[in-house]
Amino acid sequence: MVELVVIGTMALDSIETPFGKVKDAFGGSACYASIAASFFSKPGILSIIGKDFPKEHIKFLQKRGIDTRGITIGDKTFRWQGYYEFDMNEAKTLKTELNSLESYKVEMPEDYKKSKYVFLANIDPELQLDVINSIEKPEIIVMDTMNFWIQHKREQLIKTIKKADVLVLNDGEARQLFKTPNLVRAANEALKLVSKAVIIKKGEHGALLFTDNRHFNAPGYPLENIKDPTGCGDCFGGAFAGYLAKTKDLSESNMRKAVVYGSVIASHNAEGFSIERLQNIGHSDIEKRYNEFRDMREF
Amino acid sequence: MVELVVIGTMALDSIETPFGKVKDAFGGSACYASIAASFFSKPGILSIIGKDFPKEHIKFLQKRGIDTRGITIGDKTFRWQGYYEFDMNEAKTLKTELNSLESYKVEMPEDYKKSKYVFLANIDPELQLDVINSIEKPEIIVMDTMNFWIQHKREQLIKTIKKADVLVLNDGEARQLFKTPNLVRAANEALKLVSKAVIIKKGEHGALLFTDNRHFNAPGYPLENIKDPTGCGDCFGGAFAGYLAKTKDLSESNMRKAVVYGSVIASHNAEGFSIERLQNIGHSDIEKRYNEFRDMREF
Repeated sequence: MVELVVIGTMALDSIETPFGKVKDAFGGSACYASIAASFFSKPGILSIIGKDFPKEHIKFLQKRGIDTRGITIGDKTFRWQGYYEFDMNEAKTLKTELNSLESYKVEMPEDYKKSKYVFLANIDPELQLDVINSIEKPEIIVMDTMNFWIQHKREQLIKTIKKADVLVLNDGEARQLFKTPNLVRAANEALKLVSKAVIIKKGEHGALLFTDNRHFNAPGYPLENIKDPTGCGDCFGGAFAGYLAKTKDLSESNMRKAVVYGSVIASHNAEGFSIERLQNIGHSDIEKRYNEFRDMREF
Repeated sequence: MVELVVIGTMALDSIETPFGKVKDAFGGSACYASIAASFFSKPGILSIIGKDFPKEHIKFLQKRGIDTRGITIGDKTFRWQGYYEFDMNEAKTLKTELNSLESYKVEMPEDYKKSKYVFLANIDPELQLDVINSIEKPEIIVMDTMNFWIQHKREQLIKTIKKADVLVLNDGEARQLFKTPNLVRAANEALKLVSKAVIIKKGEHGALLFTDNRHFNAPGYPLENIKDPTGCGDCFGGAFAGYLAKTKDLSESNMRKAVVYGSVIASHNAEGFSIERLQNIGHSDIEKRYNEFRDMREF
């Protein structure tokens, strides 16, 4: 039984950072998010790949308990090529080949529709809306997005956000979407659209959780060796949603814990290229870092 | 008896932000820092002003219990003119008139030399070093600096840092001084120079405290209305040092509290132009916000 439906992209990424490079590596928002979620619950993925997508990656997802029946097989896999400069805060895109993603229509296995938890990782907001409309009785819909959709599909994006319970976006996107440099104002605007909460991811500076009455400020983990930040935002959102699906507790205080688990998985992910680190961490690594997060904010 | 010696600039600032402007307003690193420190202990100021400096400002300092005997009267007061754009993270300098600051020699009242606590606010590192060398038995020397000295007096700056116990600098300065984009690496380099701790201020993103074995990550306060960030870094450092001078406890856990008090005073300061807010807050405002800092960290 799928506990968390995750829609997003599956990609082959070619990435260069000051610390190395990879070509056609396993990536995409749905992959990072579902792997991150799989540390806490059983995700089912909705996405499209091409015939060129290595079977070992699908096997890896399955080995992690991820339901892959919702993956459509198209012609050619979506490819992204980008690089990071020394500050590592922003990915620079060199090339995007949408390929099969361009004509993707969600094909949802019937039993996914009974899932209570949904994570809409970054993908076209119209596809995200299709998923929302197909889930029978969602308990919570968490959604992410990115600057591309804010720029090119603003209206559809807002329409989708209005159906979500928790909006997750990064600081630059929050400023862009709500046309203010002030993150508190952006969050207050966002809270008018969603039913529950807004999370603003700030990379190395941590994450902010805003609900109607409270504010939670999660620290960033002090990483000395960041190799590749690709997918950190997706890992954050996937782990956040996965933890909620596991605990079935949607209180503000439990969302705070979910934010920290999101930060824990994202910080591990940044320490390797592609999904390298996610392949090698286990529950003890996660709990250890969770406790470090506690320690570094005690006063 | 002066409990904390503060050296820095006294200035007349002309500032424009998207939310208003002021001309020849009370400012300077020593003013902000000593006012912030005065909420916790009794500072004595070392600086220079001109004959044009309004007497009411000196009276205000005295009213706050700040010892002003260490203020030298020169010819014309140091003036800074700058502006902030919408993101408010970085001051853009339009004009700097050093005036009397150019030929300033520290004139320290004899009894200041017995002070145990020292805060070296931003000013020429050679003047900071003069102060260090004049204090008989310092318990702790906290020092701040800025990009100008990193660029123009690097060697003298490093020499001064080596005599300090706690270095306070902002994220951009940390990256510039230690030639790395990674703040953890910058902090580790800085820890080789100072005896106790390094604090990296990150504006709205909070502050990081690094000691040899531990890391503290203080949140930024979620301000919806930032009017003028001028002096926030000085307030942070002054309040930090003032709290240590008050509590006489130099443990890592007490430094964490001092960092939060620094953030509390800095966040209040950003809510008004010049020292407007600092004139109007009291202990209950400080404690209230200190508790909010606690609440927004809990998980």
